[in-house]
Amino acid sequence: MSEHIVKAYDEDLKTLHALIQHMGDLTIEQIKKATQSILKRDKKLAHEVIDEDYKIDLLEIKVDELAVRILALRQPVASDLRTVVAALKISNQVERIADYASNIAKRALLLNEIPPFPAVNGLSTLVKIPKRMLERALSAFATNDVSLALHVWHMDYEVDEQYNAYLRELFDGMIADSNNISACTHLLFAAKNIERIGDQSTNIAEAVYTMVTGKPFKENDKLRNEDEV
Amino acid sequence: MSEHIVKAYDEDLKTLHALIQHMGDLTIEQIKKATQSILKRDKKLAHEVIDEDYKIDLLEIKVDELAVRILALRQPVASDLRTVVAALKISNQVERIADYASNIAKRALLLNEIPPFPAVNGLSTLVKIPKRMLERALSAFATNDVSLALHVWHMDYEVDEQYNAYLRELFDGMIADSNNISACTHLLFAAKNIERIGDQSTNIAEAVYTMVTGKPFKENDKLRNEDEV
Repeated sequence: MSEHIVKAYDEDLKTLHALIQHMGDLTIEQIKKATQSILKRDKKLAHEVIDEDYKIDLLEIKVDELAVRILALRQPVASDLRTVVAALKISNQVERIADYASNIAKRALLLNEIPPFPAVNGLSTLVKIPKRMLERALSAFATNDVSLALHVWHMDYEVDEQYNAYLRELFDGMIADSNNISACTHLLFAAKNIERIGDQSTNIAEAVYTMVTGKPFKENDKLRNEDEV
Repeated sequence: MSEHIVKAYDEDLKTLHALIQHMGDLTIEQIKKATQSILKRDKKLAHEVIDEDYKIDLLEIKVDELAVRILALRQPVASDLRTVVAALKISNQVERIADYASNIAKRALLLNEIPPFPAVNGLSTLVKIPKRMLERALSAFATNDVSLALHVWHMDYEVDEQYNAYLRELFDGMIADSNNISACTHLLFAAKNIERIGDQSTNIAEAVYTMVTGKPFKENDKLRNEDEV
């Protein structure tokens, strides 16, 4: 390849990384805002999250278009090829996480129509680890850090524990008083979306693992048997 | 390319299609069995679904490995390249649908521990359209049929309507008697998984659209604003 072409190729790969990072940053912001919109009963903030979701959708399309362009024009091999394939997977996963944030914001709107319910506050604890998992999974992608990816993957156990404890709290609320059923159901779905942010972040971690090692992430598959409902 | 290489290349693309079709067939079977395991309170069948899920996980890995091999060795362009990229996306989407089937089977086990609840039967109606959507989305992929893909995409409206009606039924059940809360919550999550089979099938349809037309599926994005919680 001529020097010029090599340079253009490098630029393309850099842009691909930058686009994924930008998607990730926006999505992390969406998660924060969506949780706040429930905690502060902030309708305006909830609408903001819902309205901004299309930006992440458009970024996914951009990543996919650039990835296909790189595959067609540069015909990458070995680790470059694996990076492009990982980018295709990760753009899809981040876009789904952004959808979860948007779903949480939709629950904020529904919760705003009914009286405040104390268990709402549990969400602020619950969201911390999944948000951190996403940040670290993206950082593992940016730096080819396979041990960070594995670390993210293991963090999901904590999320599952916290999530199950929170579910029990909501069930107790429903059983104690049937007037709580609406609020608890909305919170159940909000919590489920948060739990799936963690779950989806492990998928990003798995894509990073395959990208760096060239091996499928399967040997550890059997360690986990989570319900992702 | 020599005749020999062209032939091997064609074989690779055929194998890619066959793997996706096999994944799809297994997954459709899993959806049927999972629903039956709830309807018939069949613990053995539920365990069967949960235990078979790894087969679909392994097929996803096979698709991804073959796709990467084709990209590296054959360096496809134009519509062949788009087919390989679509296969990477679709293998991931089918694998997720299989996870939903497995989640439904897990709910069957939990529902088996409590007394039968009549609203269970609603699931057999609810599952019909999503299952058909998946079948048609895969057939659209196999035959490059963009109009079938668009048709699948529109079927999702019906799923949303049926799902919302079913949710109302479950809420009424919970409000009527707090003893129903457990059963209704499990059914709520089972129904949500079914609804997401439809949702995820529209994602396959979108991947087929992009594969055939070479354009991102975005112009119609704004038509739908579904909550995928």
